[in-house]
Amino acid sequence: MTRTAAIIGGGVIGGGWAARFLLNGWDVRIFDPDPAAHRKIGEVLENGRRALPMLYDCAMPAEGRLSFHDSIADAVKGAAWIQESVPERLELKRKVFQTLQAHCAAGVVIGSSTSGFKPSELQGCATRPEDIIVTHPFNPVYLMPLIEVVGTDRNDPALLDRAKQTLRGLGLHPLHVRREIDAHIADRLMEAVWREGLWLVKDGIATTAEIDDAIRYSFGLRWAQMGLFEVFRIAGGEAGMRHFIEQFGPALQWPWTKLMDVPELTDELVDMIAEQSDAQSGHLSIRDLERKRDGNLIAMMRALKQQGNAAGRLILEHQDSLRHLPAVADPLVSQNRVVPVDWTDMNGHMNEGRYGQIFSDAAEEVMALVGADDDYVARGFSYFTVETTVKYLAETHAGERVEVHSRVVEGAGKKLRCFHEMKRLEDGEIMATCDQLMLHVSLETRRTCDPPEDVADRVAALAALHGRRG
Amino acid sequence: MTRTAAIIGGGVIGGGWAARFLLNGWDVRIFDPDPAAHRKIGEVLENGRRALPMLYDCAMPAEGRLSFHDSIADAVKGAAWIQESVPERLELKRKVFQTLQAHCAAGVVIGSSTSGFKPSELQGCATRPEDIIVTHPFNPVYLMPLIEVVGTDRNDPALLDRAKQTLRGLGLHPLHVRREIDAHIADRLMEAVWREGLWLVKDGIATTAEIDDAIRYSFGLRWAQMGLFEVFRIAGGEAGMRHFIEQFGPALQWPWTKLMDVPELTDELVDMIAEQSDAQSGHLSIRDLERKRDGNLIAMMRALKQQGNAAGRLILEHQDSLRHLPAVADPLVSQNRVVPVDWTDMNGHMNEGRYGQIFSDAAEEVMALVGADDDYVARGFSYFTVETTVKYLAETHAGERVEVHSRVVEGAGKKLRCFHEMKRLEDGEIMATCDQLMLHVSLETRRTCDPPEDVADRVAALAALHGRRG
Repeated sequence: MTRTAAIIGGGVIGGGWAARFLLNGWDVRIFDPDPAAHRKIGEVLENGRRALPMLYDCAMPAEGRLSFHDSIADAVKGAAWIQESVPERLELKRKVFQTLQAHCAAGVVIGSSTSGFKPSELQGCATRPEDIIVTHPFNPVYLMPLIEVVGTDRNDPALLDRAKQTLRGLGLHPLHVRREIDAHIADRLMEAVWREGLWLVKDGIATTAEIDDAIRYSFGLRWAQMGLFEVFRIAGGEAGMRHFIEQFGPALQWPWTKLMDVPELTDELVDMIAEQSDAQSGHLSIRDLERKRDGNLIAMMRALKQQGNAAGRLILEHQDSLRHLPAVADPLVSQNRVVPVDWTDMNGHMNEGRYGQIFSDAAEEVMALVGADDDYVARGFSYFTVETTVKYLAETHAGERVEVHSRVVEGAGKKLRCFHEMKRLEDGEIMATCDQLMLHVSLETRRTCDPPEDVADRVAALAALHGRRG
Repeated sequence: MTRTAAIIGGGVIGGGWAARFLLNGWDVRIFDPDPAAHRKIGEVLENGRRALPMLYDCAMPAEGRLSFHDSIADAVKGAAWIQESVPERLELKRKVFQTLQAHCAAGVVIGSSTSGFKPSELQGCATRPEDIIVTHPFNPVYLMPLIEVVGTDRNDPALLDRAKQTLRGLGLHPLHVRREIDAHIADRLMEAVWREGLWLVKDGIATTAEIDDAIRYSFGLRWAQMGLFEVFRIAGGEAGMRHFIEQFGPALQWPWTKLMDVPELTDELVDMIAEQSDAQSGHLSIRDLERKRDGNLIAMMRALKQQGNAAGRLILEHQDSLRHLPAVADPLVSQNRVVPVDWTDMNGHMNEGRYGQIFSDAAEEVMALVGADDDYVARGFSYFTVETTVKYLAETHAGERVEVHSRVVEGAGKKLRCFHEMKRLEDGEIMATCDQLMLHVSLETRRTCDPPEDVADRVAALAALHGRRG
């Protein structure tokens, strides 16, 4: 049975919630008095529809029905979940709760997106305070998995469990904040950085761009996959978390902390942190954690490289300084590289798709050698692959160094046919072969056409050099 | 000509520097009085040798020569760069600088890995203070791109330029910190979070594991690709950074900031931030920034999914609840999905390797349907692909929804041959086909063998159902 969510207050946050529910098959009813709400929510939904399904390798549920309503009373009809995302003014939020509880059934979870208020403040004057909790999301809500769930003693634990179950069903990670505090957990940590960042800008130490680079090229990458404490645990080495804190401790007393109130590193606090860290990560040795961290970092940095952004852009720039065209030879050495950790699959070896990729990369080198490089693409020409036959002869594993040897076995008119062999460098074993037919295309018409004479001549010369095979 | 780096002080940081230099073709000479230095540096090098080359799609330079030396005098012989990573004690560092400057040439850059001291403190009693700068790295040094470069008025700007050039050659991003302060930039931001995290643990609000989840499922992902200010700029929407600060400003006055000294949000500070943010990101509209952010997030989260960790593990768990075996039909609908942003290449369309992947994913569904699923792999059996022929019939783009229709065209003995068609859902156009031959294998012997009877029967039944094609 299709369930219904009511979204009270649109904007970037309400719109993000709407996308999460809709794309997970819920019907969504929206109330937002802003005359621009329709357009604003539409923009967020467009982003969400594009982005969220890309995370999955299977279809998401059929999208639910979206409707806009002129009153809260109408919007909450039949809702199994009500999400409040109105502006951060306590009186406004309390008024909204009173209005909607006059029209919704008892026991329907009312989640507030508040980033600052405590649930006890929200429950204050409500008709049924026991149904109101904080469910605080992060922008973009259609991609970020964290939801901070905060209740009070007035909430039945069963309601909190039910809420968490619903959130998990939306692909979210409910983090149950067991004691309410202002701004919950994540925003307090973020605020701390924001304050420090403002000081750095104000004092003229760094610009906003420099601060962003400092973050995204260092601890941002670390925190995206492990957070703060597990990363620091590794820094402690085999001696563990206790050693790390004891070593790191003095930093807390350094001069720039003079403005800050810092908890004293008592034995009790050190014990608490060491024990919690053991419970969190103690099942893995430091070497295991290092491998896990490095695997995550490599995969993420390669993902950013594919996007051409952030740390990935730095790698591309460095790579440009390292790579050079293959020498004209028979065969061409068109690839020489290490198989990265993100190329393996459930069988523990290189996925067959990645053979396609390395042969595609090899073909790009052949293309560059005949003059069909990035500039050529910019001029509006390229070669497109129309058929490949790959034979998988042996298993390839992450960390192995491989070469691809390529020959042009046919090169006339629009046709460029290559025969590639991928070899393990260590013992020369042929791991796979690929027979690849490419056709020359105009990127304007997206149709085949003859290449210009200089490219045709270089293709023909390679075909003559390699032509005895095929 | 091969250049030489001297590494003074090993450990995790010195070892990481050694890996960066060696893997970029430098000879490396190490001095570290710790009797365990050889082993400790060896472990870091092993990690570095495995990890760093995986970032590149081409070969790195041939590794340089590594040697260990009993004295600083010996270690710095012929060095073009000296990197100091001894423990954080100012007197010790100063003594090291005096010793090594007695033996190295004038003008050789001496970079200190110090995380806390200012370069003026390090230069204090040195023979040639003008050659000493801070070059502060981040762990793991063989993967993290950030290096904070800090000098003083005593350093010739040309030396700083030369140092930054060298660091870029190692694939690093030198961030020039223009005014020296305690702990430079990144560590001050990290310290702020560390302090707040300690409070949260001490006050019993959250455990270390909960804090790590709060970070890695929310702002950690955001900061890994954009940092703090550019992410907040997006939150301001089309109204921009000024609007964001003005809206966000009051949060700085909220109750939990009572312990903190917070810069006053004067007009001047707001102007400064808004102008710097415009200079940083003003060439992109908010929609452009949203697209960029979402592309990065999707690619990174998919990378973590492939690793089975952090936010990627959450997506896998949710995906498990969404996916179901294809219905037995002719053909099987073995894939129904959206083409994600990380599947495209320089031609702007889906890379040929990703066709291999979607057909491989389709084959996994066929395998699951005949009983060769994850449990089967755990029992020690699987099907391996030995040959595929893919025909690329039309261009596929990110965001398009596609289905793969699969037929078992041969299914007897060890053989399982599928014929797949990938269709664009919108208009039913066939984008590519794949003829795929798989053989049944024992994962123990890694050799072919007959499947057990139940699997063989199900394969035969599908072959009978689909067999009229092929």
